[in-house]
Amino acid sequence: MRAYPRSLARLIEELEKLPGVGPKTAQRLALHLLHASAEDAAALAEAIQDVKQSIRECPVCFNYTDADLCPVCSDPHRDEATLCVVGEARDLLAMERAGGLRGRYHVLGGLLSPMDGIGPESLRISELLARVREGKIREVVLATNPTVEGDATAMYLAAQLRPLGVRVTRIALGLPVGGDLDYADDVTIARALEGRTEM
Amino acid sequence: MRAYPRSLARLIEELEKLPGVGPKTAQRLALHLLHASAEDAAALAEAIQDVKQSIRECPVCFNYTDADLCPVCSDPHRDEATLCVVGEARDLLAMERAGGLRGRYHVLGGLLSPMDGIGPESLRISELLARVREGKIREVVLATNPTVEGDATAMYLAAQLRPLGVRVTRIALGLPVGGDLDYADDVTIARALEGRTEM
Repeated sequence: MRAYPRSLARLIEELEKLPGVGPKTAQRLALHLLHASAEDAAALAEAIQDVKQSIRECPVCFNYTDADLCPVCSDPHRDEATLCVVGEARDLLAMERAGGLRGRYHVLGGLLSPMDGIGPESLRISELLARVREGKIREVVLATNPTVEGDATAMYLAAQLRPLGVRVTRIALGLPVGGDLDYADDVTIARALEGRTEM
Repeated sequence: MRAYPRSLARLIEELEKLPGVGPKTAQRLALHLLHASAEDAAALAEAIQDVKQSIRECPVCFNYTDADLCPVCSDPHRDEATLCVVGEARDLLAMERAGGLRGRYHVLGGLLSPMDGIGPESLRISELLARVREGKIREVVLATNPTVEGDATAMYLAAQLRPLGVRVTRIALGLPVGGDLDYADDVTIARALEGRTEM
């Protein structure tokens, strides 16, 4: 692309490395940044570097943090008795967006997947069991994804957690709100039927 | 969103300012950058600031440049006799991607739009006429967008350019390649019929 100045071509190239950003989107973003105020462009550039430098794992729940403890673990108003287990930190963020849980979290750092060589020792399961053994937690909500790996992980964890005397629950599977029976897959409909509740 | 560390929330906020990037995409991009290599993240941050600092307008054609002249104007292998007129520098980049023209360009910096107060004096028309008066140019290709504003601009420029003794042409209007008659709008079909060529 001879018509691009070198620095513009380089920015487009870097933007194309982002997920879901193809050549056309990369060019549109690059031209937007070129015409954005110097403050906005600098703010984005600094935010990128700041995130890389400041974000690490919370030592308690393995959520993202830029302080000693993550925002959830350092929040004194959280319910100490409820612990929600998720696969990845982004799942924790999704749960928080939904705002349904006022407890604490534990991020496993993945899901069991023997085919990919991910066994229990690759995940933060011993850390989870240690937290539960401390005795404050009364319910563990298994909120791993409703996939083969997420279900297998939930079943494995349930077997490990039950002997510790805590209530173990799994998030409900069923039709998404606003969904359409006609478009739902058979497995989802079957799970929605299985999980039916009294009205 | 209490669960986000401050620096991550700030990056998401900055990314949301980009065109076509909503909260979910911004979060996905932010988490991607968080997990990207330090080199990739630094390269993107530097590319953003570099573009803001180095890119300016080419003094001849008003394309983007980070040198004295833009890559097209400084290319000695371009046809001096053909000048392609476009509205914005991004249109120039689109023409170059298509690769059909080996001439030079002139970026107007917009299109005539009396409703928005954009008259001939707001565009780089006097600069265009001055280039043509130098005498090397034999054909001016009007490649402004096929919109009301682009057509009006092309008609205005044609009237200004014809007295200077150059050939004035307009890019063809018709069905897009791979398009479908059934999905094309009536105006496009009418223009495609008007512009029909011998086979």
